[in-house]
Amino acid sequence: MATNLRPDIALAQRLFDALRETTFDGVGVTREAYGRGEEIAHALVRAEAERLGLEISVDFAGNMYMTLPGTDRSLPRIILGSHLDSVPQGGNYDGAAGVLCGMAVVAGMRQAGFTPTRDVTVMAIRAEEGGAWFNGFPGSRGALGSFPPENLSILRPDTGLSLEHHMRELGFDPDALRQGRKHLLPEAVAAYVELHIEQGPVLDAEEIPMGLVTALPGNRRIRRGIVRGEWNHSGATPRAYRHDAALALAEFAHRLDQFWGALEAEGVPLVITFCTITTTDQAGFGKVPGEITFSLDVRAPELATLDRAYAEIERLIAEISAARGVSFALEGRQASVPTPMDAKLREALRQSAEAMGIAHKIMPSGGGHDAAAFAQAGIPAAMVFVRNQNGSHTPLEDMRMEDFAAATAAITHWCAKAAAA
Amino acid sequence: MATNLRPDIALAQRLFDALRETTFDGVGVTREAYGRGEEIAHALVRAEAERLGLEISVDFAGNMYMTLPGTDRSLPRIILGSHLDSVPQGGNYDGAAGVLCGMAVVAGMRQAGFTPTRDVTVMAIRAEEGGAWFNGFPGSRGALGSFPPENLSILRPDTGLSLEHHMRELGFDPDALRQGRKHLLPEAVAAYVELHIEQGPVLDAEEIPMGLVTALPGNRRIRRGIVRGEWNHSGATPRAYRHDAALALAEFAHRLDQFWGALEAEGVPLVITFCTITTTDQAGFGKVPGEITFSLDVRAPELATLDRAYAEIERLIAEISAARGVSFALEGRQASVPTPMDAKLREALRQSAEAMGIAHKIMPSGGGHDAAAFAQAGIPAAMVFVRNQNGSHTPLEDMRMEDFAAATAAITHWCAKAAAA
Repeated sequence: MATNLRPDIALAQRLFDALRETTFDGVGVTREAYGRGEEIAHALVRAEAERLGLEISVDFAGNMYMTLPGTDRSLPRIILGSHLDSVPQGGNYDGAAGVLCGMAVVAGMRQAGFTPTRDVTVMAIRAEEGGAWFNGFPGSRGALGSFPPENLSILRPDTGLSLEHHMRELGFDPDALRQGRKHLLPEAVAAYVELHIEQGPVLDAEEIPMGLVTALPGNRRIRRGIVRGEWNHSGATPRAYRHDAALALAEFAHRLDQFWGALEAEGVPLVITFCTITTTDQAGFGKVPGEITFSLDVRAPELATLDRAYAEIERLIAEISAARGVSFALEGRQASVPTPMDAKLREALRQSAEAMGIAHKIMPSGGGHDAAAFAQAGIPAAMVFVRNQNGSHTPLEDMRMEDFAAATAAITHWCAKAAAA
Repeated sequence: MATNLRPDIALAQRLFDALRETTFDGVGVTREAYGRGEEIAHALVRAEAERLGLEISVDFAGNMYMTLPGTDRSLPRIILGSHLDSVPQGGNYDGAAGVLCGMAVVAGMRQAGFTPTRDVTVMAIRAEEGGAWFNGFPGSRGALGSFPPENLSILRPDTGLSLEHHMRELGFDPDALRQGRKHLLPEAVAAYVELHIEQGPVLDAEEIPMGLVTALPGNRRIRRGIVRGEWNHSGATPRAYRHDAALALAEFAHRLDQFWGALEAEGVPLVITFCTITTTDQAGFGKVPGEITFSLDVRAPELATLDRAYAEIERLIAEISAARGVSFALEGRQASVPTPMDAKLREALRQSAEAMGIAHKIMPSGGGHDAAAFAQAGIPAAMVFVRNQNGSHTPLEDMRMEDFAAATAAITHWCAKAAAA
């Protein structure tokens, strides 16, 4: 490894500034998947890659690959990347940090005159945040041939047009996704490493700049749960005659929270969130609620934990329904499996962090990321978290450049070794 | 008492049919307070009173008095009455039954050639259901000089116009209410008796046609409760870092429900209802709720029970706020005191029911009624419940005419004795 090999953090800083300036929406940044903001971001990064003289290509899903060629191009390559889209009125770092980390690493290699043995590719992935409506990561899963074809017809709520329409509009090829064509062959990728802000408060609270992720969580979701009881007069209906949907849901939520507390005490990682709870339009002052809706998000890095949680959910629902004379309907169920990150790759990155004297924490991820698609395709995948401030998916989202620089330095250290091997 | 003295149930039936026919809205009946449906009902009942040759007058609040004159007009009179308005898309019996009971009683007296010693007045009260927005019973409290003047400026949500405006539009005199003028002097009223459907399911479930009310409940209300926590990413925020407003409210509601269950086991009457629970617009899938709103309706026939319930509410809120790092704001607080009905009057009515062989139950009321205004003015007041089916404030509301006839027969029996005394 060249001793003068350092990531070009100034380049990353320049790109962060340009991204914020060009995609600021008055409140936060908006880089909508397969939309204007994402296009701006891709153009900005592409111009920088051209200046660096990287090889540039775009696949049928619109992902961009910016490659520093290795001396032996037949060797499986290293991919450093993340997504360039954002949620509406989001922060500047969620996604972009991972792409600009890759740019800083290869720019540093170029400047140090370092030529890797194998290709090092920076990948700017499409539509990770689109996942909220474009279910299933059309960017990363599209490249890997694992995108569920039925999701191509999901409509984007703000435009009322399908994912397929939006992809085609920009000149990409949704038919390739439908056919499950693979732009990336797993055997041709030695490692996928994604730097990302943590999104949660753990690293910031514990004053650790960098995290190394053990696993991405699986989830089980109920997008639309409905508790049905009986509408009654709130004064004239004694307790014994009630079938109060709201109190049934309160009991369910509180007892599930107590179950979670017990698992937490055992040290089992899990999060449970009733994201929305709403009595229906029929509700009003003076009425016992006959109906209430909710949505429930359960995530854990272990499949067994999700199974335990859902066994408890079913037990509670059966017990509460019988005791209170109400019924629960669970609609819009979704599930994904937890995905462990590659242990060897994590250990190699940990050694690099240690060699550079960078404090780090081994931790599970709370959110889902493109890295899951790579790991599920059999590619060794790793995620490096950077501590962030004020949460994510909010204009208040923040990240210190010195923390980004530290994590990027560790990745550069690892990459120089791995790309030379 | 004339042995052939029977209430004219056929007259009441005719009026019930005419009321339903003329105020049916396609779903239920709508007789909006100081609005079209209430006006139609007053005109129908007035026409019947004219046919019966009753003395008719209307007070400054629009209440109508239809009097069968007694031989000694200086004696305090008996009032039989209730309200003629309804909730939107309500049932035909809630309110009207008490007025038509009075009409059946005096018509029966007329037909039997029975002349009472004291006046017997049927009172058709205004705007009892208007209470949901025209706070404070403008009809009965208006007549008694106890209507809170500030409530005259409350706006009716569907028209956007004030109570004062609506009263004046029909030729009534809100200034008299503002000044607290008394149309009814308490010393000039010997008794107020109100027949009303029960509104709850107790009599129907216990197969008893008639109830005699011990007390009208007091209430303590929170029209707009807000729990504030912290918005966070539902995947990336571990349990220890959360301030989940929805789970805080679920704990509050469930533990308050458990407290209520314990009081119920002690035999203490009380009802507790979270009428609405709603996460705010900012909520969405993937977020820990940082805010949730609720409304809370607590009613009991004993002041001490309300005090116990609110002591528990304050204890729970303090404990949960501290434990979860959330805050509770309790806005739109309202309170009314429980109002006992007159024990002697109830006993006299009970004896009449017994004399007529009518099964009955001594019970508290769950809902508030105009009778509270009379009792609080010092007038001996009683309420007679008739069992009903399918609840109240719904188009499904029902009442069997035989049950109405039985309760009206008991009231006729009592009234003949009381009016002769």
